[in-house]
Amino acid sequence: MRLKSRFLGLEAGGKLVVVLNREDAEDLVVSSLERVKITKGKKEAIAIVNTTTKLIERGVVGVYEEVRESLGLKEGDDVDVEVAPLPVSVYFIRNKLAKRKLTYEEILEIVKDMVKGNLSEVEIASFVTALHVYGLDLDEATSLSRAMVETGNTLKINKPLIVDKHSIGGVPGDKTTLIIVPIVSAASLTIPKSSSRAITSAAGTADRAEVLMPVQLDLEEMRRVVEQTGGCIVWGGSLALAPADDIFIKVEHPLSIDPLLLPSIMSKKKAVGANMLVVDIPTGRGTKIKTIGDADLLAKDFIELGHRLNIKVQCAVTYGEQPVGYSIGPALEAREALSVLTGKKYVPDLIDKAAEIAGILLEMSGKGNGKEIALEILKSGKAEKKLREIIGAQGGDPEVMPEDIDLGDKTFTVQSDKDGYLLWINNASLVEIARLAGAPKDKGAGINLYKKIGDPVKKGDPLLTIYANSNVKLQRAIDELEESYTLGIGERMDMLIHEIKERPVTKKMFMLDR
Amino acid sequence: MRLKSRFLGLEAGGKLVVVLNREDAEDLVVSSLERVKITKGKKEAIAIVNTTTKLIERGVVGVYEEVRESLGLKEGDDVDVEVAPLPVSVYFIRNKLAKRKLTYEEILEIVKDMVKGNLSEVEIASFVTALHVYGLDLDEATSLSRAMVETGNTLKINKPLIVDKHSIGGVPGDKTTLIIVPIVSAASLTIPKSSSRAITSAAGTADRAEVLMPVQLDLEEMRRVVEQTGGCIVWGGSLALAPADDIFIKVEHPLSIDPLLLPSIMSKKKAVGANMLVVDIPTGRGTKIKTIGDADLLAKDFIELGHRLNIKVQCAVTYGEQPVGYSIGPALEAREALSVLTGKKYVPDLIDKAAEIAGILLEMSGKGNGKEIALEILKSGKAEKKLREIIGAQGGDPEVMPEDIDLGDKTFTVQSDKDGYLLWINNASLVEIARLAGAPKDKGAGINLYKKIGDPVKKGDPLLTIYANSNVKLQRAIDELEESYTLGIGERMDMLIHEIKERPVTKKMFMLDR
Repeated sequence: MRLKSRFLGLEAGGKLVVVLNREDAEDLVVSSLERVKITKGKKEAIAIVNTTTKLIERGVVGVYEEVRESLGLKEGDDVDVEVAPLPVSVYFIRNKLAKRKLTYEEILEIVKDMVKGNLSEVEIASFVTALHVYGLDLDEATSLSRAMVETGNTLKINKPLIVDKHSIGGVPGDKTTLIIVPIVSAASLTIPKSSSRAITSAAGTADRAEVLMPVQLDLEEMRRVVEQTGGCIVWGGSLALAPADDIFIKVEHPLSIDPLLLPSIMSKKKAVGANMLVVDIPTGRGTKIKTIGDADLLAKDFIELGHRLNIKVQCAVTYGEQPVGYSIGPALEAREALSVLTGKKYVPDLIDKAAEIAGILLEMSGKGNGKEIALEILKSGKAEKKLREIIGAQGGDPEVMPEDIDLGDKTFTVQSDKDGYLLWINNASLVEIARLAGAPKDKGAGINLYKKIGDPVKKGDPLLTIYANSNVKLQRAIDELEESYTLGIGERMDMLIHEIKERPVTKKMFMLDR
Repeated sequence: MRLKSRFLGLEAGGKLVVVLNREDAEDLVVSSLERVKITKGKKEAIAIVNTTTKLIERGVVGVYEEVRESLGLKEGDDVDVEVAPLPVSVYFIRNKLAKRKLTYEEILEIVKDMVKGNLSEVEIASFVTALHVYGLDLDEATSLSRAMVETGNTLKINKPLIVDKHSIGGVPGDKTTLIIVPIVSAASLTIPKSSSRAITSAAGTADRAEVLMPVQLDLEEMRRVVEQTGGCIVWGGSLALAPADDIFIKVEHPLSIDPLLLPSIMSKKKAVGANMLVVDIPTGRGTKIKTIGDADLLAKDFIELGHRLNIKVQCAVTYGEQPVGYSIGPALEAREALSVLTGKKYVPDLIDKAAEIAGILLEMSGKGNGKEIALEILKSGKAEKKLREIIGAQGGDPEVMPEDIDLGDKTFTVQSDKDGYLLWINNASLVEIARLAGAPKDKGAGINLYKKIGDPVKKGDPLLTIYANSNVKLQRAIDELEESYTLGIGERMDMLIHEIKERPVTKKMFMLDR
């Protein structure tokens, strides 16, 4: 069927989509969400069909930007449209729905079609749901990891040993990576660290690092920085290391499920060529992994999957009941990390965690007492020097000092209304408040804590300060703070967290951060 | 945030969708597929967000038609946009993903939000996938049936006994309803039959009936026809009896899953007020239900679900290895049914099936030997007279004769290339051929068979004729016929259907017809 193309001026998030008049679609024997092949000269594309009864008349095909670009169309161009067979990957997804285990070839085909924009949201959502419900066994997790590497870019660095670290996230204020990377590379290891931006949290490592230096590097720039300094802290999103993962995340986020945690993380480590990896698994009420037993099980899967991908993995199960350090939000956290590196501040939990994890990497690579070496590198100023090298190599100001970092100028400080101790912290609530204040987009927005769990509190003591760039956002954050149970102050043995007098509204936080 | 509205000139299939510039979305702290509340004067709507980096600039909100209509917007109107909380129904869907059983209230909330356009494709696809994977227990099936009735229209007819019939489909050429409805209403029962159009088949009952009379009636017209004649055969799609089902089907179809079979059927029966129902379950290689044992299990569920909904259900497990009668395609089938009613043709399997099912309804309602009565009503011409009454009441020509019905004028007849018997028929292949020939949209397109299973065949005997309205479509159908195993001719005890010499391409037919 020959149709005249009309530009819709819309993007479909990477998918190839066209809109047909329903009569034309019926003549083609194609329904909504089925596929057509569109041919213009020698170029052809497979697109998913939406139908309409009025806005596109017969004889016209409405094209999204992705189709326009793929075929190099001009408005009004005639194109040939015919029904296209279902991609075989859809049959593989249907097999998964029927609980069949998928082979590597089948998974690769699904991931390839996803990356090419050949699968609809319905198909991807159903696939991800089926993976969530049935779970992935290690064979499938291995296949998915490999397929995600196969369909993305890879970093090639000519070193026999490449190390990496990853946190499965879920603890606010975890700026540990900003300290681990310089320690580890100061110890002459190679650590090409790619990080994510916040999805559901108040700051991702890429957001924090961006306060200090550009993080949106391409693969070639990343390679140059790593070869020059031994390390880097860049945003993974611009590297396309595993572009399939971005598509999975778009579906996982609204559904609050994360079946691809393991392959997603491991594929990105494989893509940067890592052969040694430490995975931080924070545990606690407010994190993804609630108990130490669950953390151990997850660690086992990481180690086994790493084994299959030729990556030696060790895991660190860490304490995650409260934020790491005192700050939450990109600029506040960058300041805190830099203050620790410059020796201007002593933040015990942050330093301990960074030294432990850096220490594991040092020991894995054959150096003696890892934690001691790590602490020594930190205290000696070698880590600070290394971070400044990296900042310079990535195009930032290597002389930057903590006090140069701008914070939001609208602030609100909460004081304690009684004496006691800080008994507990609701991490999810802190994240929500920081996000409403503008984080991670407004780099200067966030929260500074003055107390950690167990600290004595006097009536009138400041508990936390909210930072924002505008009064509107500050107010939204204050409103949330007033409505929620954020900090618990009381006597040491006070047991009640809060009362539930009627059926509570479910409002479970979901942490999707990679 | 105040934004200027811009019309996108697109429909989102009933969903409320807006497109924001990504920067604006980030300022609102809302991601793609999350929701915003849009306010214009006193009207407000919750819409799902898509984001774009270039096609919608900052300060503008792109609105789909559904949003324009819902708010009564004019192009360029200023609207207030703010982040909206997640509908609680999304939490219920997430609970289902976690394998929690849903209550009636929770299911009702999901269905309501779906019908209002408040749920995204991703959420609906995931919900349907979870229902498919976990299955529905009878409580949930009951809740879904009730929720689908609750969110749709209902037919009120002032009769103590209202009967209905339904086939779960999957057999091509099943025009039985065109004969059952007149028999049953000629016996003074009330049967307000609403039928579907073909989704994956070559003709639905509504497509067949439309050859004889208008079927796109509204609820009031349907009521008038039923009160006047005791029966009707109308298209369910224009009645909105269970509008949620249309939304479910849009997702089930691309996924080839049908977890809502029972509630979908039963909700529509409940909505027309039926209190007695016979469900036809065709069994055989080519149908949805492959074995008699599976049919029995499904029947048990129908009977139990009916019990909970106050509908007395009986089931008829029928033979479904080959088409019913000789014709496939709307006009060919309408002709065949009318020929049987007028006594011009004797089609044994069609007559037997219609009499059996009509007979069950007659016996359920207290009349003696149902099948005999049904056959008597058919032979006496009372059924024909009743169908003509219904045709007239629905606005068709009550004098229509079989030969008045137009068939496609492009035909192709296949002859047998050997002597033997017709051993088997591949129903899926027949459907595919009829659809490529233009059915169900081209009413005159389809297939006429000359032989049924077990019939002797001589070399040169015609086996089937394909009808189409255009040579292009006829050729597509012929190409498919030549590529596939459609009919098996051989000696009585020939066992081989076909050889498989290499890994076959999966091309399983999926039947979604309600």
